[in-house]
Amino acid sequence: MSAPGAGVRLDDLPLREDLRGRSPYGAPQLDVPVRLNTNENPFPPPPGLVAEIVAAVGEIAGTLNRYPDRDAVALRTDLAEYLSDATGVRLSVANLWAANGSNEILQQILQAFGGPGRTAMGFEPSYSMHPIIASGTRTEWVPAPRRADFSLDAAAAAEAIAERAPDVVFVTSPNNPTGQSIPLSDLRALIAAAPGVVVVDEAYAEFSSRESAVRLIDEFPARVIVSRTMSKAFAFAGGRLGYLAAAPAVVDALLLVRLPYHLSSLTQAGARAALRHAKETLASVRLLSSERDRVAAALSGLGASVVPSDANFILFGPFADRAAAWQSYLDAGVLVRDVGIDGHLRVTIGTPAENDAFLAASKEIIP
Amino acid sequence: MSAPGAGVRLDDLPLREDLRGRSPYGAPQLDVPVRLNTNENPFPPPPGLVAEIVAAVGEIAGTLNRYPDRDAVALRTDLAEYLSDATGVRLSVANLWAANGSNEILQQILQAFGGPGRTAMGFEPSYSMHPIIASGTRTEWVPAPRRADFSLDAAAAAEAIAERAPDVVFVTSPNNPTGQSIPLSDLRALIAAAPGVVVVDEAYAEFSSRESAVRLIDEFPARVIVSRTMSKAFAFAGGRLGYLAAAPAVVDALLLVRLPYHLSSLTQAGARAALRHAKETLASVRLLSSERDRVAAALSGLGASVVPSDANFILFGPFADRAAAWQSYLDAGVLVRDVGIDGHLRVTIGTPAENDAFLAASKEIIP
Repeated sequence: MSAPGAGVRLDDLPLREDLRGRSPYGAPQLDVPVRLNTNENPFPPPPGLVAEIVAAVGEIAGTLNRYPDRDAVALRTDLAEYLSDATGVRLSVANLWAANGSNEILQQILQAFGGPGRTAMGFEPSYSMHPIIASGTRTEWVPAPRRADFSLDAAAAAEAIAERAPDVVFVTSPNNPTGQSIPLSDLRALIAAAPGVVVVDEAYAEFSSRESAVRLIDEFPARVIVSRTMSKAFAFAGGRLGYLAAAPAVVDALLLVRLPYHLSSLTQAGARAALRHAKETLASVRLLSSERDRVAAALSGLGASVVPSDANFILFGPFADRAAAWQSYLDAGVLVRDVGIDGHLRVTIGTPAENDAFLAASKEIIP
Repeated sequence: MSAPGAGVRLDDLPLREDLRGRSPYGAPQLDVPVRLNTNENPFPPPPGLVAEIVAAVGEIAGTLNRYPDRDAVALRTDLAEYLSDATGVRLSVANLWAANGSNEILQQILQAFGGPGRTAMGFEPSYSMHPIIASGTRTEWVPAPRRADFSLDAAAAAEAIAERAPDVVFVTSPNNPTGQSIPLSDLRALIAAAPGVVVVDEAYAEFSSRESAVRLIDEFPARVIVSRTMSKAFAFAGGRLGYLAAAPAVVDALLLVRLPYHLSSLTQAGARAALRHAKETLASVRLLSSERDRVAAALSGLGASVVPSDANFILFGPFADRAAAWQSYLDAGVLVRDVGIDGHLRVTIGTPAENDAFLAASKEIIP
């Protein structure tokens, strides 16, 4: 028996015109021995953290009939403490906001500061969700280029901002999928040129030794928003916890557009447990950073061209046929990511054994 | 020491003009002995369910470094099974979609079928989030009236739909905050008049003996979307799990606008555990329905005017000064809801003891 309503097709629906013909976003979720395609932390939560998450959920499970704390005050307090320690900037709960992944954080920012009749700029190639979320909030996307080597030319970027006057600017640092981060001095030049808000997307900040843009909040309180996530360094991708740091007034603005009770009690409790284990988890970040340097050196040794990275992934090439190269890796049991950049593929840094498997495959595949 | 950026005010930000001067949505979260204001199920998850949720989280906690199943297939399969049993309509996983609360479900529907240049209609007074989410997605809100007794005049509603041709129609059944549900024959008349999609918001359906609009999916596959939640009957408000049933093509449409990985592994595991306990949990629904009838009769006995309800709340009055009456209840330790309807307040059905406390207070407060 077929599903009720199975006879009607997508084209028969009164869908928005601008969505017609589109395909859903997303990397293939394939069952492959070595998955190095979505920049996850390859180390599972250790038994102590698993026990702490389970205990935290046990503490709140008996109250799940009640709505969660709408403003997630306890979680935001813990995030403020973590981020203060990580950046050396003394933040308060009023500076922090949290949502279901940084995607929801970015969507809320665009609902408050972008939207119809407004524009958002990014420096491409960069995180592909920025233009997608802009489109989802009907914000016009204005792309600007990076240099041919994927680094950001701050003077040219500031000029593009001044010329196009976007309401929202996205700067990803370290940049996904290319890997380079941006010094504060360059960020200052961009922010000074911006008439609207500048979102510094620091999803991979823990893998970099560069100073955080959190330092700029007090300097440009009406301009700077720093977006972060627990999906990468914190090994909490399945927990979906994105957050931001900004002036308290920015958080007030997001309260106007967030869906009430957006963050479940399970998420709040789980994320707080993960934050209590920050020190242990972040030890894996140091290992991954050193593995990244080892893999980059080995790839260079194989004759590959490697884009400098201080994130947990590496963009490398050149491949005359990147789709064929991607398939060759898959045939060798290694899932990497085709991010749509001519001649290049992106590999996430995995465990030492996973990286060895990737490098062994690379010996055969790199021309 | 003050928070970084604390000197800047909301008015200093480059906020969207239409958000200026607004206040965030939300009932006060007050610490009161008897909380009957947000239509939660008053019965906490029993120890067996708590243990099952904790076990389910324990099973997935070791994989939280990986992203969740983006399409939540296992959870949607379980929801299809539950909803098939509950409605007598054989649904498949392809008919179901899930998100962080029905608010996110409604937001995704409006992103796909509403948005700038499109309109959404609702019959007021009804769920106050419908116009708020419409505004958040820049969909123009077109209100239409109910009868003076808050029931829906289906002929007048169909006429309003035909005249204004909204892209999205919201029908809440049972209606929040008034309580009445709508027969399928009336829904058919509304859907037949609608040029776009009709969202039947069945957040409180388990408290009603009325047939579900799920029966209409096969009849109007390109028109009918039934939205549901685990927040009320399932006593899972803290877990934030909303869902919908519709033709498979409607689910395909939502895949174009959902944020990837919107639903955490914790939420998926927790909701599946709660669904395994559906039979036990729903036993509380029968008790709450009979308590609702008892409270309604007792209020009538006190001389109150009571709007007929087949949900887990009651709208009642008349109060010359409803704000003063709300405060009198609060002073008596009972938190009810002022939903902005002249002369009326809304009370959620609680445990028998909570309802007794409410009725005792009512004896003093009802004029």
